[in-house]
Amino acid sequence: MTHIAQMLETHPAATSSGVDRSVLLQCIEACFDCAQSCTSCADACLGEQQHLDQLVRCIRLNLDCADVCETTGRLVLRQTQPDWSVIRTQLQACVAACRACGDECQQHADGMGMEHCRVCAESCRRCAEACEQLLAALPA
Amino acid sequence: MTHIAQMLETHPAATSSGVDRSVLLQCIEACFDCAQSCTSCADACLGEQQHLDQLVRCIRLNLDCADVCETTGRLVLRQTQPDWSVIRTQLQACVAACRACGDECQQHADGMGMEHCRVCAESCRRCAEACEQLLAALPA
Amino acid sequence: MTHIAQMLETHPAATSSGVDRSVLLQCIEACFDCAQSCTSCADACLGEQQHLDQLVRCIRLNLDCADVCETTGRLVLRQTQPDWSVIRTQLQACVAACRACGDECQQHADGMGMEHCRVCAESCRRCAEACEQLLAALPA
Amino acid sequence: MTHIAQMLETHPAATSSGVDRSVLLQCIEACFDCAQSCTSCADACLGEQQHLDQLVRCIRLNLDCADVCETTGRLVLRQTQPDWSVIRTQLQACVAACRACGDECQQHADGMGMEHCRVCAESCRRCAEACEQLLAALPA
Repeated sequence: MTHIAQMLETHPAATSSGVDRSVLLQCIEACFDCAQSCTSCADACLGEQQHLDQLVRCIRLNLDCADVCETTGRLVLRQTQPDWSVIRTQLQACVAACRACGDECQQHADGMGMEHCRVCAESCRRCAEACEQLLAALPA
Repeated sequence: MTHIAQMLETHPAATSSGVDRSVLLQCIEACFDCAQSCTSCADACLGEQQHLDQLVRCIRLNLDCADVCETTGRLVLRQTQPDWSVIRTQLQACVAACRACGDECQQHADGMGMEHCRVCAESCRRCAEACEQLLAALPA
Repeated sequence: MTHIAQMLETHPAATSSGVDRSVLLQCIEACFDCAQSCTSCADACLGEQQHLDQLVRCIRLNLDCADVCETTGRLVLRQTQPDWSVIRTQLQACVAACRACGDECQQHADGMGMEHCRVCAESCRRCAEACEQLLAALPA
Repeated sequence: MTHIAQMLETHPAATSSGVDRSVLLQCIEACFDCAQSCTSCADACLGEQQHLDQLVRCIRLNLDCADVCETTGRLVLRQTQPDWSVIRTQLQACVAACRACGDECQQHADGMGMEHCRVCAESCRRCAEACEQLLAALPA
């Protein structure tokens, strides 16, 4: 069991929110995973000397998506007295950031064979899906 | 002139986005100001030994709002190849976080005379307004 | 293979730094894991209504340690043109934060049977060790 | 008076640490100012189409310095039960990051007339000095 899963299980509010634990956990882990992939992809693109000028928009979106996913992960991770309206809008922002960044990365994976962009696109897609699943499971 | 204002003025993309520079600048400065006020208010509430149990929700919202405002400030600050759909949803999340946190802080300012909550509520209101003004000024 | 491991493997600078890849990877993963455990432990402590007044220092150290580990993880993750003197001092700060936070958490695990503090103390110890191993492996 | 100054003044622990308030305040404001200048300089360098390949190291250092300054600012801002050994090592990491980043930016200000790098170099120098002054004023 990951440390995040153990933290959720030992949290004093663990059973109070009514949100399915596995949906919650998948979203948290996908957000942090995507934040890290995007931080790394921005840096990997910056190291692509021959193609750097074609990767400017990708780096920009990677940096934004990393910040958005990190913040979203922190909000969803916190279990004490959640404000669902705040969490809901942040999850929507995260879906938008992951869709935009994932699409951009996929283009460079397909067009230039950029392997780090392919991995990052996968992280972005999984995170967008996990956020959408949590959005569907949140209390009204 | 603040360093942020100087950075915007010397940025190679400074004149390309078509967004009113003063609206942009006010939003950036309000986001970072609010991130700092919320980080500090969470910490000040944590130091209120006599009232700590009444401030749990306030601390929670302060931590969330600090993270959301910091991320929003970073996105709006970046001028190179912005994706407006990403920025727009993040600004909406920031308005929601600032409204929720500002309302909570105002209650403790009014009810218990918490002066740090009064200052923080003011930062939150100003940030929500600055984000709404930028949302109204963004390209469609 | 985790996404971080895949990102390091596909990075254009992957083989240039001369640092042992598995030591690097363990440090990166331990930093992000500890950032998440500390963010969660601060929140779990905040939810401990009966013991909150004894957990103030723990929450403070959790918040600091979360920020320090997140920043350290981002620096170590970046592979393009690293400045080792910057990375070295940040790793030293991370060891200090993890030792202080881990010791505090362990006290509450032992004294009050706080299980989230026990998990967090383990994350902190592992992160401090992983940072020390990377410090020993860095270029002089 | 800035919101940060007001927050420090209304904090319940405001008078307990024994650290000179104006030294503390200057350090906090310099850290957040530098985090913002570095975030903006990384983005401005990314937008310099003609010179991008010469600015790779600058972008890398800007991103690192932004993260380090943001974390340092948060730690120094928090007044409740500070652990000086943690804060001290983080301040040292911040001095190292600001010196490295400021030197790199100054080179591009001098060599290529990059005005955003000139502004950022000034933020970095001021932050390094403010951290050194706080280090000298901390309790032993």
